[in-house]
Amino acid sequence: MTSEAFGKLVAHARETGKFSSILALIEWDERTIMPSQAGSYRAEQVTSLSGFIHARRTAAEVGAWLDELRDVDWENGPHGDEASTVRELRRDYERQTKLPRSLVEALAGAAVRGQQAWVEARRNDDFSEFLPTLETIVSLRREEAEALGYESSIYDPLLDAYEPGERTEVVAGVLAALKTDLAPLVAAIADSGRTAPVDLLHQSFPIDEQEEFGRSAARRIGFDFERGRLDVTHHPFCATMGPSDCRITTRYDKMFLNPAFFGTLHEAGHGIYEQGLRDDQFELPPGSYASLGIHESQSRMWENQVGRSRAFWEHLFPAAQQRFSSLANANLDDFYFAINDVRPSLIRVEADEATYNLHIIVRFELEQAIMGGDLPLADLPQAWREKYRDALGIEPPSDADGVLQDVHWSAGLIGYFPTYALGNLYAAQFFAHADEQLGGLDEQFARGDFEPLREWLREKIHRRGRCLTAAELVVDVTGEPLSHHPFMTYLQGKLGPLYGI
Amino acid sequence: MTSEAFGKLVAHARETGKFSSILALIEWDERTIMPSQAGSYRAEQVTSLSGFIHARRTAAEVGAWLDELRDVDWENGPHGDEASTVRELRRDYERQTKLPRSLVEALAGAAVRGQQAWVEARRNDDFSEFLPTLETIVSLRREEAEALGYESSIYDPLLDAYEPGERTEVVAGVLAALKTDLAPLVAAIADSGRTAPVDLLHQSFPIDEQEEFGRSAARRIGFDFERGRLDVTHHPFCATMGPSDCRITTRYDKMFLNPAFFGTLHEAGHGIYEQGLRDDQFELPPGSYASLGIHESQSRMWENQVGRSRAFWEHLFPAAQQRFSSLANANLDDFYFAINDVRPSLIRVEADEATYNLHIIVRFELEQAIMGGDLPLADLPQAWREKYRDALGIEPPSDADGVLQDVHWSAGLIGYFPTYALGNLYAAQFFAHADEQLGGLDEQFARGDFEPLREWLREKIHRRGRCLTAAELVVDVTGEPLSHHPFMTYLQGKLGPLYGI
Repeated sequence: MTSEAFGKLVAHARETGKFSSILALIEWDERTIMPSQAGSYRAEQVTSLSGFIHARRTAAEVGAWLDELRDVDWENGPHGDEASTVRELRRDYERQTKLPRSLVEALAGAAVRGQQAWVEARRNDDFSEFLPTLETIVSLRREEAEALGYESSIYDPLLDAYEPGERTEVVAGVLAALKTDLAPLVAAIADSGRTAPVDLLHQSFPIDEQEEFGRSAARRIGFDFERGRLDVTHHPFCATMGPSDCRITTRYDKMFLNPAFFGTLHEAGHGIYEQGLRDDQFELPPGSYASLGIHESQSRMWENQVGRSRAFWEHLFPAAQQRFSSLANANLDDFYFAINDVRPSLIRVEADEATYNLHIIVRFELEQAIMGGDLPLADLPQAWREKYRDALGIEPPSDADGVLQDVHWSAGLIGYFPTYALGNLYAAQFFAHADEQLGGLDEQFARGDFEPLREWLREKIHRRGRCLTAAELVVDVTGEPLSHHPFMTYLQGKLGPLYGI
Repeated sequence: MTSEAFGKLVAHARETGKFSSILALIEWDERTIMPSQAGSYRAEQVTSLSGFIHARRTAAEVGAWLDELRDVDWENGPHGDEASTVRELRRDYERQTKLPRSLVEALAGAAVRGQQAWVEARRNDDFSEFLPTLETIVSLRREEAEALGYESSIYDPLLDAYEPGERTEVVAGVLAALKTDLAPLVAAIADSGRTAPVDLLHQSFPIDEQEEFGRSAARRIGFDFERGRLDVTHHPFCATMGPSDCRITTRYDKMFLNPAFFGTLHEAGHGIYEQGLRDDQFELPPGSYASLGIHESQSRMWENQVGRSRAFWEHLFPAAQQRFSSLANANLDDFYFAINDVRPSLIRVEADEATYNLHIIVRFELEQAIMGGDLPLADLPQAWREKYRDALGIEPPSDADGVLQDVHWSAGLIGYFPTYALGNLYAAQFFAHADEQLGGLDEQFARGDFEPLREWLREKIHRRGRCLTAAELVVDVTGEPLSHHPFMTYLQGKLGPLYGI
């Protein structure tokens, strides 16, 4: 009976997965190549398909199979494929069934309208236009959190959607410690009197050359183009629509090398994770990513620990000089300093590695205050300005470049931001450990060899899927719980010499 | 009650249409841009989605609604939206429910395996490798025809899948008359002693220039790129995945202008038809194409009656000369003759306008013999050679260029070929009538004005959707039933002066 229920549960999840991956494809298409007039019908297709998938995931028979499997003692232990499959499918089922359909639909609708209102409000630099929509979204997500239930923090069930099993308290502790240590580093850099020669990166870089260069770098670090694609979009992302179909995206600025190149490395990092998941477990938890934080650790590692290292450019700089005439007379030291420029700035997505997490911490603190009811939404722009002044020493001259800069809240994504910072910390912690275990990653990078790191990540992280939570995984891989220390050590090690601090 | 049943039937069909159009998108993606390794999973996605759509289309409730609506006398008459919706949905429902699920699945599986076997057999030029698969496919389609039922010909229910309501007897009569009249024309051309200067078309035509040229011509005749795309594929096609999302495809040969340019016009013709269907009736019969023959009439008209006319090139030739240096010293008369070259050849898709239908007639006659049991499949290669010798005066030196040249039979498509010839005949008949009604199309084309023809087609054909059968539509539009005479008049009018016959 047990094995029969398990077989049915798995077959059902696999069939649902066919439809979820189709949904991923039609959403990818919408964000990349769909004709401009096709949007409204695509929204209807997405709604129909999403509704069907939701119905499958909350079908009563799923609950019945899960009930039958409640007390099974699985042969391969609690982190084996079977136990993980049942545990995570139960997690998903319970989350989905706790939410009344009316709430799910209200949230979906609010997210669509929210993004439209946000675009308008941002264009007009008028937070008050966005306020009513935000009130609705926050109230719906509060309702969701209440329906899901929580012990200590109403933020927990929201965070849990993106970082399964993680607790607000734990994240808050780590990020507070990080903030404390970042402040003096950023201050020391500002006081160093040194400035990176960033003009180097703001020159003419023909787009087709950028594309070839980025594609070749992505291929080099291990993104498999026979099992994926690279396309252009406004807001880059990575999407998976099959075990051998992972698509990354980027955007090009013909006068600035960074967005497309480091964006491509970043998305290729996500893609290498997806391509490293177990094919035979596609559609099932053992073949799924562990959490958004772990996902982001993979993208950030390839973008930063690898792509912004001196060793990486010892390998790649000659090719860059050959491809881009604007770099022909540049030298590697200047280029390396330029791509590691640190300075407080207003826009999160353009921030450097050191200040980036401060942008996240501002949002994380504000989200907790909002959800906890401690901050009236009308006061949000002012609170934003104050927090930026405190954390980064600068204040946005407009709400468009302040509280309205990110799409997330308008799309209902509250609890998502901290996963970016967690990704940075996980990346540093994993990377330090890989470097120790593999010995001399720099030397490997300098000769263009990324296979040892990639295979290490594949074995230690990718092939574990969702059999461990992020918190369990980091202990399993590095022997230590999540900490901000490896990240600070990494930053200090790189920025110290550059800024003489 | 009536209106309630009708409302439910329509809502159900509209919801099913969301999924069918998603299926069109994932199949388009597979045939154009999908990563090379993603095929096997895509097949699983297609199977799951197709199965779900089939289940919706054959749901018992659909049958119940249709029963309720059986004897309704619709206010707008038998060809109004309501009556046509019910009639065509009933047609679809009855067809689908007459077929046992096991047969549908067996056919789908046989088509997938058939295409693989065909690729191999064609590569090895070995019909015997393909024979067992073809036996299976023919036997399954015979089973299908028996399940669907027929009066006079077992070929009728197969033809009916592509050309709703059409009868084998009628098509056979028209195509036999066509064959009789084509033979002397083709012979006279061969005896004329004139040869078109086709070398003009076999020169260097850079692919990006071809793409821009084709795109601009497609836009000019009326394909709307805000509601569509043009991409590259191996076997060009047109697919629609929403009321404002129609995608056409082509393929480029850098040493031959014709395949991409006339292919793009052809597919744009299909696309203009799809884009001309009624948006508000998308997913429903009044917003669907009438038949494959009518669809092909639209593509062939833009490709041939328009795109191979002298007037069209009076407009476009200067731009072609500017774009392609290989045409800089050519003259319009030679170019016009070259694109209208007629000579018997082995490969259907490369055939000229005059001999093309002979390729179709060979296939149509063989299909009837096969389905009627008059021709053992083992004898098919020999029968093919004989028919080519009779019809075209040439004999394929290999089965790869003979009986194995088309994918259709391997994919289970028996009954499909005649729609190509019907398309040619409908195109000529519609065009002659448009020319008469609109007066001086040539003069309009010569100044690049294609709007009158396009709007005429839109009003007379596109916006009629599936409210009339093809046979009814041609009478309604031209006052006459389908005939091969307008086509012969068209050919004679064009080829007579070129070949002095």
